Amino acid sequence: MNAISTDRIVQPVPEPTVRRMPSYLNLLREMLRREEQFVSAPAIAKLLHLDPTQVVKDLSYTGISGKPRVGYMVSELVLALEDFLGYNRTHEAFLVGAGYLGSALIQYQGFRESGLKIVAAFDIDKRKVGSEIAGVPVFHLEKFRDLASRLHISIGILTTPAPAAQSVADLMVGWGIKAIWNFAPVPLIVPEHVIVQDTHIYANLAVILNKLKQAKAV
Amino acid sequence: MNAISTDRIVQPVPEPTVRRMPSYLNLLREMLRREEQFVSAPAIAKLLHLDPTQVVKDLSYTGISGKPRVGYMVSELVLALEDFLGYNRTHEAFLVGAGYLGSALIQYQGFRESGLKIVAAFDIDKRKVGSEIAGVPVFHLEKFRDLASRLHISIGILTTPAPAAQSVADLMVGWGIKAIWNFAPVPLIVPEHVIVQDTHIYANLAVILNKLKQAKAV
Repeated sequence: MNAISTDRIVQPVPEPTVRRMPSYLNLLREMLRREEQFVSAPAIAKLLHLDPTQVVKDLSYTGISGKPRVGYMVSELVLALEDFLGYNRTHEAFLVGAGYLGSALIQYQGFRESGLKIVAAFDIDKRKVGSEIAGVPVFHLEKFRDLASRLHISIGILTTPAPAAQSVADLMVGWGIKAIWNFAPVPLIVPEHVIVQDTHIYANLAVILNKLKQAKAV
Repeated sequence: MNAISTDRIVQPVPEPTVRRMPSYLNLLREMLRREEQFVSAPAIAKLLHLDPTQVVKDLSYTGISGKPRVGYMVSELVLALEDFLGYNRTHEAFLVGAGYLGSALIQYQGFRESGLKIVAAFDIDKRKVGSEIAGVPVFHLEKFRDLASRLHISIGILTTPAPAAQSVADLMVGWGIKAIWNFAPVPLIVPEHVIVQDTHIYANLAVILNKLKQAKAV
C-alpha cells in the first residue's frame, strides 16, 4: 500500500528536490488530463530532462513509490504531490507594497491553484489605502500588526520599493510573520528562525540583458 | 578621469556580480534622491551586507572607480550602473502566453524603468487574440514569426502553461529569438547560442511552504 503518510512528509527535504516538485506536479496533472494511468520514472525523467535515479529519489519524499513494471499511478502521485506542496490547503498571506508588482501579484490568479491566498494588502500611500485590488482590501501599514496576530498570518509578501524593504521586513518579523517572500531587489537581514525567499526579478532581467550584450559583442 | 568606457563594459562579467548590479543601482538612486554626493565602498557594503572588497570589484565592471578618501561620485555611478544594466536603452520583447501571469507582467509598469518594453503579446486563445492588455496588443501565435523578424525582437518572455512551454520555446528559437525569459515551471532545452533565464515563481513558493511546514513540525 502507498498510503500518503503525513509523518513521512515532514522530514527535511533537500531544497533542489522541493524546487523540482512543481514541475513534477505540472507534468503529472497534464498526464491525468490525458487520462494516462501509469508512468515510469524514466519516462518522467526524459520529459523533464532529469536523471531517472533523481526522479525516484525526489518522488520518494511524497511517500509514494513506483511499482515494478507499471511505475507510478498518475492519479495517486498527483494527490501526493499536491499534498507535499500544500496545494490542497490554504496558506493565507499579507502583501506589503501595493505598487505595480504588488498589484500584479494580487491579480495573478495562478496562486490560488497553489493554495496561496493573499487576504490583505498594506501600503502607506493614502491614495491606495481604502481601495481594493481584485477584491483584496488595501489597508494602511499600521493595521498590519493587529490583523497579522488576529488572523494568524504566517506569510508576508514584500513588494515595497527597495529603500523600504528592510524596515518593512523588521516590522513583519516583529509582528510574527514566519516567512517573507521578498520581491524587493535588496537582501534582507532577519533572525534565524524567519524564512526568507528572494525572487529577484530585476536580477534575472540583468542577467538576460548582460548575456545579450556579450553575445552581440562577440 | 572616470569616463564611462563602453569597450570595458563588454568584458565577461561574473553572473553573481551582474545579479548584484540592480541592488547597487537602487541604493545609489536613493542616495541621489537624498542629494548625497559621494559614497564609499565600505558604506555601500554595509548597507547591502556585502564585503567591501566585493563591492569595489563589482563596481569596477561599470568602468567607474572610487577616488581615495571621497569614494564614488553618486551621480556618476548611477549613470554608469544604468548604462551597465542597459536601463538607458529600450529592449523590446514579445510575450507568449497572455494568461494571468503574462497579463500581470504586461501590466507591471516597473519594467519600463529598466528599459524592458513588452511590445506585443501572443496567445492561441481566440477570446484573447485581438484584445489589448494595458495597451499591448494580443496577436495569434502564428503572427509571431512575421513580427519577430520584421521588428528584430531579441527577447521572448514565456508565460504559457507548462505543457506548451517547450514547443513555444522551439518556435521562439526558430523565429530568431536570442534570449528566452522562462516563467513556465519547466526546464527548457534550447541550442547553445540561445540564452535562457528561468524565474520559477512556483519553485520559490514551494520552498517557502516546505520550510514553513518543517518549522511547524519541529
